[in-house]
Amino acid sequence: MNSLKKVELEEMIRTVPNFPSEGILFRDITTALKDKKGLKLIIEDFTKRYENKGIDYVLGADARGFIFGAALAYNIGAGFVPARKPGKLPAKTVREEYTLEYGTNAIEVHEDAIEKGAKVVIIDDLLATGGTAKAMINLMNKLEANIYELAFLIELEDLKGRELIGDYSVYSILKY
Amino acid sequence: MNSLKKVELEEMIRTVPNFPSEGILFRDITTALKDKKGLKLIIEDFTKRYENKGIDYVLGADARGFIFGAALAYNIGAGFVPARKPGKLPAKTVREEYTLEYGTNAIEVHEDAIEKGAKVVIIDDLLATGGTAKAMINLMNKLEANIYELAFLIELEDLKGRELIGDYSVYSILKY
Repeated sequence: MNSLKKVELEEMIRTVPNFPSEGILFRDITTALKDKKGLKLIIEDFTKRYENKGIDYVLGADARGFIFGAALAYNIGAGFVPARKPGKLPAKTVREEYTLEYGTNAIEVHEDAIEKGAKVVIIDDLLATGGTAKAMINLMNKLEANIYELAFLIELEDLKGRELIGDYSVYSILKY
Repeated sequence: MNSLKKVELEEMIRTVPNFPSEGILFRDITTALKDKKGLKLIIEDFTKRYENKGIDYVLGADARGFIFGAALAYNIGAGFVPARKPGKLPAKTVREEYTLEYGTNAIEVHEDAIEKGAKVVIIDDLLATGGTAKAMINLMNKLEANIYELAFLIELEDLKGRELIGDYSVYSILKY
């Protein structure tokens, strides 16, 4: 995305102080999603990056990763796989525990969701400490998938999520 | 969607018995979403139905409504608004309590998410008893939005969700 579009998109994202807890500046993407120009800027940017790359699946994190993940998968002719919070998937799953910026949680995918060797883009709205992202990487490694890249709308650079992710390629549209 | 495509799509949906509780036949859509043909069939069907209808916003229910909702909104040039579980939205919200098939919950949207009179499609993966759908209708009425239609991938007819929804128009791709 060129810098003019980035500025346009940044202006659509609302910053809410002290949410979900004191001292946190929350980047509220709902104001960009409700703007049809904002939604278009985001989806087109991800689409241009991953089309014609032979991506088999887009793995989206519960819940905001579903917003970009399914639209991206559709646009590039891939399948969409949701990584879900515990207890949501009905068939046999693989599971990873992780630490959030504001607590702990676990995430699951169906054991048969992705075939060994399939090329996968992992997507979420936000890269903060990288806990969720690292858990999704571990899930993909358990299934022996081939991780092409991790994609985020926003990266909070101070929280050093890239360090936790290690050698995998990371793409973020906006950095704060 | 023509009947041949419906059969094709139905065959991609996995039925898991006794989930989330004894005696429930759970319709698992993840097997259709991971199939690029399945994802395409669903998104194209919703897109054809709502394109060129002057829809301003697609309201998607947390979390599976995000999967179709954002892709649909992007395709028809509308904005996407997530209706979220409590505590997820950072700014001022309106809130509705509702009864699920398997418990109770509440759902919220930002108070400034949708302007008075805007034309809205409400979307979710499943119409069961209609509790979530009715709560989303009530949220839209609180914001004085104009509900164009409610859209679902699957409708479980036995659970009579349409009766709870009342006079609003309902569209579902597959009926069980």
